[in-house]
Amino acid sequence: MRSHDHHDDLETRDPAAREAAQLAALPAQVRAAQAVPAYAGLLAGVDAATVTSRAALAALPVVRKGELLDRQKAGRAPAAAAWDPFGGFSAIGWRAMAAARGGARRVYQSPGPIYEPEGGTPDYWRCARALFAAGFRAGDLVHNSFSYHLTPGAWFMDSGAQALGCTVFPGGVGNTELQLQAMADLRADAYAGTPSFLRILLEKAAETGLALPHLKKALCSGEAFPAALRDWLAERGVDGYQCYATADVGLIAYETAARQGLVVDEGVIVEIVRPGTGDPLPDGEVGEVVVTVLHADYPMLRFGTGDLSAMLPGACPTGRTNRRIRGWLGRADQTAKVRGMFVHPSQVAEVVRRHPEIVKARLVVEGEMANDRMTLKMEAASTPDGLAEAAAASVRDVTKLRADVVLCAPGSLPNDGKVIEDLREVG
Amino acid sequence: MRSHDHHDDLETRDPAAREAAQLAALPAQVRAAQAVPAYAGLLAGVDAATVTSRAALAALPVVRKGELLDRQKAGRAPAAAAWDPFGGFSAIGWRAMAAARGGARRVYQSPGPIYEPEGGTPDYWRCARALFAAGFRAGDLVHNSFSYHLTPGAWFMDSGAQALGCTVFPGGVGNTELQLQAMADLRADAYAGTPSFLRILLEKAAETGLALPHLKKALCSGEAFPAALRDWLAERGVDGYQCYATADVGLIAYETAARQGLVVDEGVIVEIVRPGTGDPLPDGEVGEVVVTVLHADYPMLRFGTGDLSAMLPGACPTGRTNRRIRGWLGRADQTAKVRGMFVHPSQVAEVVRRHPEIVKARLVVEGEMANDRMTLKMEAASTPDGLAEAAAASVRDVTKLRADVVLCAPGSLPNDGKVIEDLREVG
Repeated sequence: MRSHDHHDDLETRDPAAREAAQLAALPAQVRAAQAVPAYAGLLAGVDAATVTSRAALAALPVVRKGELLDRQKAGRAPAAAAWDPFGGFSAIGWRAMAAARGGARRVYQSPGPIYEPEGGTPDYWRCARALFAAGFRAGDLVHNSFSYHLTPGAWFMDSGAQALGCTVFPGGVGNTELQLQAMADLRADAYAGTPSFLRILLEKAAETGLALPHLKKALCSGEAFPAALRDWLAERGVDGYQCYATADVGLIAYETAARQGLVVDEGVIVEIVRPGTGDPLPDGEVGEVVVTVLHADYPMLRFGTGDLSAMLPGACPTGRTNRRIRGWLGRADQTAKVRGMFVHPSQVAEVVRRHPEIVKARLVVEGEMANDRMTLKMEAASTPDGLAEAAAASVRDVTKLRADVVLCAPGSLPNDGKVIEDLREVG
Repeated sequence: MRSHDHHDDLETRDPAAREAAQLAALPAQVRAAQAVPAYAGLLAGVDAATVTSRAALAALPVVRKGELLDRQKAGRAPAAAAWDPFGGFSAIGWRAMAAARGGARRVYQSPGPIYEPEGGTPDYWRCARALFAAGFRAGDLVHNSFSYHLTPGAWFMDSGAQALGCTVFPGGVGNTELQLQAMADLRADAYAGTPSFLRILLEKAAETGLALPHLKKALCSGEAFPAALRDWLAERGVDGYQCYATADVGLIAYETAARQGLVVDEGVIVEIVRPGTGDPLPDGEVGEVVVTVLHADYPMLRFGTGDLSAMLPGACPTGRTNRRIRGWLGRADQTAKVRGMFVHPSQVAEVVRRHPEIVKARLVVEGEMANDRMTLKMEAASTPDGLAEAAAASVRDVTKLRADVVLCAPGSLPNDGKVIEDLREVG
């Protein structure tokens, strides 16, 4: 049953019912993950049946891009014991008549290179929900200006639009004049692609006197979508929305007509963790987006996206009851090189872990070439004698580098997800 | 039931049974065509029930690219009574829940621009048959280097490979290094794309010391595939085949392991006609390829491809019983500009029609700028007095231009599909 305003009833269910349903699905998801070689190792000793709470989920390791890449590289190395280009993370390989789960329909290459399989389910990346929220409907002609080559971006939109009952024109990238002519000749109703290319198309249309009166909506992704550009599009009759998705996990969250952050997709569990760790942050704090996909073909469990965001309090006025995140707030990978040594967010987290009094910490790197200075700014719940000295000793122990320690008032450190702040001028 | 060696039983049926089945399907096909506005006009007065023979089919008009383009242009013009970007040729439009025939999954743009719909049937363009004949099998990873953007080329191969049960890597065009890395990392079994790009990939692989030991087969299209390049590929372990397909009608014919011309696809009826006319030529004579598609979504009936080929006598040694054509033998569009006037092959055909004695004719244009000479070379069954003079008068009447007439011995004019031969130097 679909209501007029929502893609399906999942979007409007009672939040407690959603939480219960998703947590109830976790044991099977953990078991599906344990069935692939990479997670079999990462989750060794974990009793899947006990993973029925957010706390139990949070105790499982976060898998980040670097680890995925390393395992894929090992899996495709000539010396690999069993060749596996997905590094032991995928439950599906090439298609074969007898294969379990049907095999991959297509396979994609993202920078790294990291390879991702596409399973056989329709709307595999779940983007129909985001397209629907952006106003796309059955019978629309969707002009798709993402690239269909190598990476899966265009396929997210194509398969989502197909699932909605739209017809798609595969415009791809470049060929601005030909794409514009197709939009005009075919009277495209909707656009999917980067917002900057849509701007180029509309500017070129105005320049050449071409009217696109049928183009009324757009779903943008792949880059920042500033409010100023959204307004610019609206002045030209195009209602533009954005969604947040990655090649590894598909759709994560999508914008609605309420224009208040992005609503989390129904097929994933999203956590916001302290960068470099697997520890969930209190609601509202900026941290790394960690995603668990509730699908067994490519069972990404606690995948660290490397992107920063934060939970937004309250509910979406459109009636969608899922949690909301703020948009993309930067990259979580804050590794800095100081006096020839790498300093990772996970090392700052280790320092915090050693001192229960520390609530929050931020390592600030300043100075000029060969004269770097590090300062650990920290908020503490209590300040026993010697805490600053002990923290400084921990920094030296963990990073092999010296740092000053500054105690800050509780709540005074900025909420921007930064664990390491690099203030040095780029050479 | 699929045998080990053939895609299906249609390929090996008794030729008389195929002919009977295809002719029996013609009335429904003509009715389907008459149901779309363009053919309703073109086939006005035709009783579909009587179109049950090749002779009856040959009496129907040939539709050429120019006419398709003109009608599409009229259909998308702002002044069009009923907007229709397919110019009245398509039975399907954008998808809508209630649409007859399900609507188009995608729409493509070919040079012109001419737009083509993709219907909802799996393997819509019937290319699985060509891929199978080239050795592609379920479980293969197919590296697809056609472009997925604007034109349908890559989609022919993608949908055919999906129907066979292959996994596809959408490589697209360009990005040679990244594509090569994907082929090596993913151990691609098969390649689909232009033969020249495959050569570039293999040369780059050799240059960079990258091995592709798993790549064993290729289906090439989109350009000429000379035997020398086929041999070059074979020396590198790749068994390359070709197929002949167009955006308007999909697969027309495909190469088999016999390497004797191209076997006609089971979903089309192919005729070879005298360029500029709709008149079928005797077997073996070079003429224009005219295709009737036995599918009702985009019911191309007697579509003139503008390509030259000829029927090849005999049967394919692989057991496929359909007729065979020679490969692509050039373009049929031989319009020449002589002393400021256009001369069309259809005008030469008109001259021949006025004189029953003329068996075959060829208009030769020679000379230099502003000093063109035309000669009508003709073979005649009999030579009554005054035939040459009468033919010269007909040329003048039809073309408004003067020509010498030369009688030639029967069988002496070359069998190359040329009705107008332009021997002038290109300025």
